[in-house]
Amino acid sequence: MAPASSKLHAITDDKTQQQNSSCPAASNGAIEPSNAKCAASSNHLLDADEFRRQGHKVIDFIADYYAGIADYPVHPSVTPGFLLNQLPADPPSRPEDHPDGAFGPALQDVRDVILPGMTHWQSPRHFAHFPASSSVAGVLGEALAAGINAVPFTWAASPAAAELEMVAVDWLGKALHLPESLLFSGAGGGTLLGTSCEAILCALVAARDRKLADIGTDRIGDLVVYGSDQTHFALRKAARIAGIRHDRCRELQTCLADMFALSPAALSAAMDADAGAGLVPLFLCATVGTTQTTAVDQVGALCAAAAPHGVWVHVDAAYAGSALVCPELARDAIDGIEVVDSFSMNAHKWLLANTDCCALWVKQPKLLVVSLGTQNEELILRDAAAEGHDVVDYKDWAITLTRRFRALKLWLVFRCYGVEGLREHIRAHVRMAALFEGLVKDDPRFEVVTERRFALVCFRLRAPDQLMDEGNEKKKTTAAANELNRRLLREVNGVALGPYMSAAVVGGIYILRCAVGSTLTEERHVRQAWEVVQERATSILRG
Amino acid sequence: MAPASSKLHAITDDKTQQQNSSCPAASNGAIEPSNAKCAASSNHLLDADEFRRQGHKVIDFIADYYAGIADYPVHPSVTPGFLLNQLPADPPSRPEDHPDGAFGPALQDVRDVILPGMTHWQSPRHFAHFPASSSVAGVLGEALAAGINAVPFTWAASPAAAELEMVAVDWLGKALHLPESLLFSGAGGGTLLGTSCEAILCALVAARDRKLADIGTDRIGDLVVYGSDQTHFALRKAARIAGIRHDRCRELQTCLADMFALSPAALSAAMDADAGAGLVPLFLCATVGTTQTTAVDQVGALCAAAAPHGVWVHVDAAYAGSALVCPELARDAIDGIEVVDSFSMNAHKWLLANTDCCALWVKQPKLLVVSLGTQNEELILRDAAAEGHDVVDYKDWAITLTRRFRALKLWLVFRCYGVEGLREHIRAHVRMAALFEGLVKDDPRFEVVTERRFALVCFRLRAPDQLMDEGNEKKKTTAAANELNRRLLREVNGVALGPYMSAAVVGGIYILRCAVGSTLTEERHVRQAWEVVQERATSILRG
Repeated sequence: MAPASSKLHAITDDKTQQQNSSCPAASNGAIEPSNAKCAASSNHLLDADEFRRQGHKVIDFIADYYAGIADYPVHPSVTPGFLLNQLPADPPSRPEDHPDGAFGPALQDVRDVILPGMTHWQSPRHFAHFPASSSVAGVLGEALAAGINAVPFTWAASPAAAELEMVAVDWLGKALHLPESLLFSGAGGGTLLGTSCEAILCALVAARDRKLADIGTDRIGDLVVYGSDQTHFALRKAARIAGIRHDRCRELQTCLADMFALSPAALSAAMDADAGAGLVPLFLCATVGTTQTTAVDQVGALCAAAAPHGVWVHVDAAYAGSALVCPELARDAIDGIEVVDSFSMNAHKWLLANTDCCALWVKQPKLLVVSLGTQNEELILRDAAAEGHDVVDYKDWAITLTRRFRALKLWLVFRCYGVEGLREHIRAHVRMAALFEGLVKDDPRFEVVTERRFALVCFRLRAPDQLMDEGNEKKKTTAAANELNRRLLREVNGVALGPYMSAAVVGGIYILRCAVGSTLTEERHVRQAWEVVQERATSILRG
Repeated sequence: MAPASSKLHAITDDKTQQQNSSCPAASNGAIEPSNAKCAASSNHLLDADEFRRQGHKVIDFIADYYAGIADYPVHPSVTPGFLLNQLPADPPSRPEDHPDGAFGPALQDVRDVILPGMTHWQSPRHFAHFPASSSVAGVLGEALAAGINAVPFTWAASPAAAELEMVAVDWLGKALHLPESLLFSGAGGGTLLGTSCEAILCALVAARDRKLADIGTDRIGDLVVYGSDQTHFALRKAARIAGIRHDRCRELQTCLADMFALSPAALSAAMDADAGAGLVPLFLCATVGTTQTTAVDQVGALCAAAAPHGVWVHVDAAYAGSALVCPELARDAIDGIEVVDSFSMNAHKWLLANTDCCALWVKQPKLLVVSLGTQNEELILRDAAAEGHDVVDYKDWAITLTRRFRALKLWLVFRCYGVEGLREHIRAHVRMAALFEGLVKDDPRFEVVTERRFALVCFRLRAPDQLMDEGNEKKKTTAAANELNRRLLREVNGVALGPYMSAAVVGGIYILRCAVGSTLTEERHVRQAWEVVQERATSILRG
């Protein structure tokens, strides 16, 4: 495997080279004859025929990658610096000389140098992270959006893109059984962002500014944000960015008995205590499907607890939001959702929409615009057609002004699979996770630590008998069991062409996580994964 | 043009439908025979052969789009609601029944329903916004990254992606003549984000937290942020998000005599005044290439003014950053850059890297990590190989945790075009802009308002003689000239298959903006654009 890049020249920065009004390239004697012609424009860089030629190669490349993805270890055996040390320190001055153009050798390097160092998120044996689910419609929707490459920051900047986004988020909201209060078809509305971090930050900033408008800007230091010790770090990150004091972020403790859901009573007590101390409860982030164990906070009860304090309630359903397409999964998970202020989920996680595609819905879009809206004085391009109409300029709903045309792929996903197709997709994964859960339960050496709710199984090897019998030395037992499972994960992930799993520590318990979610995962991959876990466990327990 | 979507059924949400452990789809009598088979998995959604089949169609679709793009008006003649009214209010329950699968009709709708409502950013006649420049390597790099669909939020989450990003940002920094202090090859480092808004926000939050660690968290209300009245709204947006008081954002006035660059003396005076009033100067955003006129703030002199106050200096070169590949354009534009704390530019704007690709470099990456870093407690997946190494976990450098594999396309752009190819691309546009500028200057009815520096020409029709002669009624003259040019823009943009331009108001003067930057723009498009402007001007002045 010789990196083709070794053939590349380093940048040669000819400081004497000047812009020349006639033809700067030709004026430089150092340029080789093949490049010496004076290009009248840059349009060869986006030539339709060249695009077609190289594009077909890329499609075949990706198709071949999917066809052969099971032959890659999910996680590569590489050490830090492995790629840095292979690539030249300087960019190439000229593209590689190759009969087929420089694109061919570059693609070869992707295959030979880059792919072997990747973690293959689309591998059917990837059970470690929540999925980044790809689909034919999702990948090609991304390709199509990249080809069109519009920047729909305002309605005028690309009317069809702005309106397709409105359609797509309403479709998605309806498919997920969200209430009308959050949809354009009601009084709310949604947008497509990159990530849940952005969604939570947008909601938090809107909530903060509404509150500060009431109590005075100088009280920013008194604002308090609430979540549980299971809430995703995205909340703390958003709070830090928004200028909330670090010591005003409450991470309320959860426990195994509550299946690690946030207790409404604990929330109520915390808010009362803060209010009593002269602080100002501001924002609650409830989670439907936590990262570590897919715990579901009881939205309705939490909203009731938060209401007396006028707290903005956001629901983060980054992972489990996709499952809400299935009525049987949505029913209890979002009970009470009607009164929340905002809701977000990642359609790129488990709904086939490829990275990135986070949907955020808010009950009062105007509050986003108050906080994040920009005046249009920079570029006067108000559309005559839009005058007098209430168009949505999505730049005013987000952290960023520039944005990609994400609606296209989400719309394609709906067109190509339909809501029923998405349900079947989710149910297939839930069924496979249930299968894995059953296999764990059938082996008395193991236990399922938290009830499976979606497609994540949290399990572990029980501590060996001799340790379990040591009576009250619970701490020692826990430590020993944790060490045992830590070793088990390391060994499972070390098996050549085996499954790739992850772990978490909740309530002091080290658990293994098997997250079924790759689009390519089949039942046989799940069964094989379990066989590897059993086999490694047997080996460890024997030793 | 009948939207195919009208054929689609509305979602039918069968509330009685339950998850069934054997085969939920088959248990529902409503499902049609063709869908009644119990899919063992979702893997048909990412089937290699289906991907290949549909993927080749998408490549041809995009290639055809480029080949025929000149036939579209750059900006569509549509009114708000045009698309909302064509698409069904509910998502389809099932994909459309079509011999070729649902993807075919969906693609047909993109062509027939969506594209006619788009603003075509890749049109060779798009002179309105700074470009969102596409290239074969950029589009296909996006497609490839979408196909691989990895989420490199940590080194372990995809080692090759993390290291390729380090390589790509160092290559880019060297190509742009940035100092070693900002590169990994020095003591700094860079990352690829979505937009300049994120880059400025990251830098601002790092600066804020460093300062508050010194002076105390409760002084957030005293922090002051500086820019000019030409600074992009991204600064104000970032300041708002970061909790900086609205009345602590200084927008220092610029003037035509200074070519709308921020005056170091004015900055110095403002900072002294604020410090004297007990406030704390925090952050300066200097701009290299402002949005309205591509003004260049004098970085070195501004840094000298800011230094006594310990202010973090960020340089926003969102647009003009790409031009720095050309030594002759970089020379003066970033004089003094060695001492700045951070620098950002959008490689997706004018450097062929497709949306989105914003590069941010910082002198002290650890300050980003202090502000934005997250503990890894959620998912224990530390890589054994990474233990003891100083790997870069990019999630700690940004607003977001989830991120796309943007480095791949940037690396492909360098591989396919080389630094010299990028220079030729920039120079071709600069040359065409110079041509347009010359044409404006040759017509005595017009004037170039601000000196052209990159590929934006800011021009306007002079006020008619009779008004010019009215002596001291300058205000009236200005208003009349502004109205004249407002009408000119409206008429130019109204010409069928004509150019699409924009306007700005600087120092009270309404200017027309002709930004050359589309990859497909050739000299003939620039000449034709000027002919349309002249022809419309003649018509207006005659009337």
